[in-house]
Amino acid sequence: MTPPLRNLERLCIHTITTKPWALAEAAGHYAAAGVKGITVWRQAIEGSDAAAAGRLIRDNGLSIVSLCRGGFFPSATAEGRRKAIDENRRCIDEAAALGAPLIVLVCGAVPGQLLADSRQQIADGIAAVLPHAAAAGIRLAIEPLHPMYAADRSAINTVAQARAICNGLGSPWLGVALDVYHVWWDDRLESEIAACGREKSLFAFHICDWVTPTTDLLNDRGLMGEGSIPIRQIRGWVESTGFDGFIEVEIFSHRHWARNQAVFLEEIKTAYITQS
Amino acid sequence: MTPPLRNLERLCIHTITTKPWALAEAAGHYAAAGVKGITVWRQAIEGSDAAAAGRLIRDNGLSIVSLCRGGFFPSATAEGRRKAIDENRRCIDEAAALGAPLIVLVCGAVPGQLLADSRQQIADGIAAVLPHAAAAGIRLAIEPLHPMYAADRSAINTVAQARAICNGLGSPWLGVALDVYHVWWDDRLESEIAACGREKSLFAFHICDWVTPTTDLLNDRGLMGEGSIPIRQIRGWVESTGFDGFIEVEIFSHRHWARNQAVFLEEIKTAYITQS
Repeated sequence: MTPPLRNLERLCIHTITTKPWALAEAAGHYAAAGVKGITVWRQAIEGSDAAAAGRLIRDNGLSIVSLCRGGFFPSATAEGRRKAIDENRRCIDEAAALGAPLIVLVCGAVPGQLLADSRQQIADGIAAVLPHAAAAGIRLAIEPLHPMYAADRSAINTVAQARAICNGLGSPWLGVALDVYHVWWDDRLESEIAACGREKSLFAFHICDWVTPTTDLLNDRGLMGEGSIPIRQIRGWVESTGFDGFIEVEIFSHRHWARNQAVFLEEIKTAYITQS
Repeated sequence: MTPPLRNLERLCIHTITTKPWALAEAAGHYAAAGVKGITVWRQAIEGSDAAAAGRLIRDNGLSIVSLCRGGFFPSATAEGRRKAIDENRRCIDEAAALGAPLIVLVCGAVPGQLLADSRQQIADGIAAVLPHAAAAGIRLAIEPLHPMYAADRSAINTVAQARAICNGLGSPWLGVALDVYHVWWDDRLESEIAACGREKSLFAFHICDWVTPTTDLLNDRGLMGEGSIPIRQIRGWVESTGFDGFIEVEIFSHRHWARNQAVFLEEIKTAYITQS
């Protein structure tokens, strides 16, 4: 059995988890609560200066773990795919200005387009932006998304698929972001995580829970312990690879966003220790 | 490219697809519309005599393709698992009385229970009921369910997992029910269908579509052509195995149930020919 986490040293929270809070508010609350890391969603810094946002975060003593998110490479038109590549280059510049060492890629999909075509466009898109990422010193992590998002958010739906792209491109700047919500059902998960370890491609680890019933495909995630995901077991598999990076709490939930975010933050800390 | 279907000879409709219609109404409308097969959901004959329901259907000139559904084997308690086995034996008796040669299994899951445990309980439960099915001359088909149902409806989420149970039990009475809705995202689908063909385990083929956005995890399926599933491509893979059985339209949709079912039935016929 994987032992419980003893303290908050590896706890990172995604700004989207406490969406009602503006960035400065989130950073202040996280730091005061003893959280050590923050992953910044692009909308949290939209319209503001990324470098200033980065300073604000670091002034609170927080580590910037990643920027969410790049990706959305597939398009029905060549023009659309070019625009997506341009947007990902801007995202890399933004991460560099912010001081985020990693970008999470939600790879994209086009309703009605064959998944095989989208998957090829994703590989092509990542290949096109990798040199820019490497030059900026920013790592890219492909996040396999749950198969319920295959039609419109990501045609990459398993760790095996993410690894295949990583292995095809063979760059130390490209890896995998593992979110338990998306992959917990996969009976190949333990061996796929081990393979990521061997290939040194496990760049990020996200947690939350799957609630029953799930009433919204996007925004009904649970706090750790509220649902069915064996988070601690999966963390054990992740740590067996040698991973000792941040454990990132990423929860989209209309239910939790409607609550007092300071109370929610305390619950996150408790659930992190007792359920993760 | 797989050629279009030329006529309705292989068209089967699930009673749940036109849920507002009682069984007699559905059978009459299907037959008048030129539909050849019907799959009966248990609730459509609940409280009535299964043998009489079977006669009613055959009197309308329809073939009974299958009974939906058995399964739900996992439980947190041994008592619960025994009850599930008993219920599946009753379902087999009901299929025999109805004159349905096949039962579709939605295998079950228990929120919070490890999927590996549920998967073992499913294999054990099927093993326990198989002799009763064989004695009654009823085939059982494991339907892999979409991973979004892993927590509460089925821990069997890929064709590979369904095949593993079939191969483990090695009975000609046990096979796979393939529903495009559940498996279309799987990049192993073509090879898994081919494997089912070699193993002679492809017992049923269900169609519908995945709409964007999907607003309800259970009851927001689309009519063929309304969404992203390459139904004709998948039908081609299925028919490459030699499968020439019924093509079953199974659509759960609050949207379509709220409409005039006679109009919907005509749309199903058109979509079957043009989109499947």
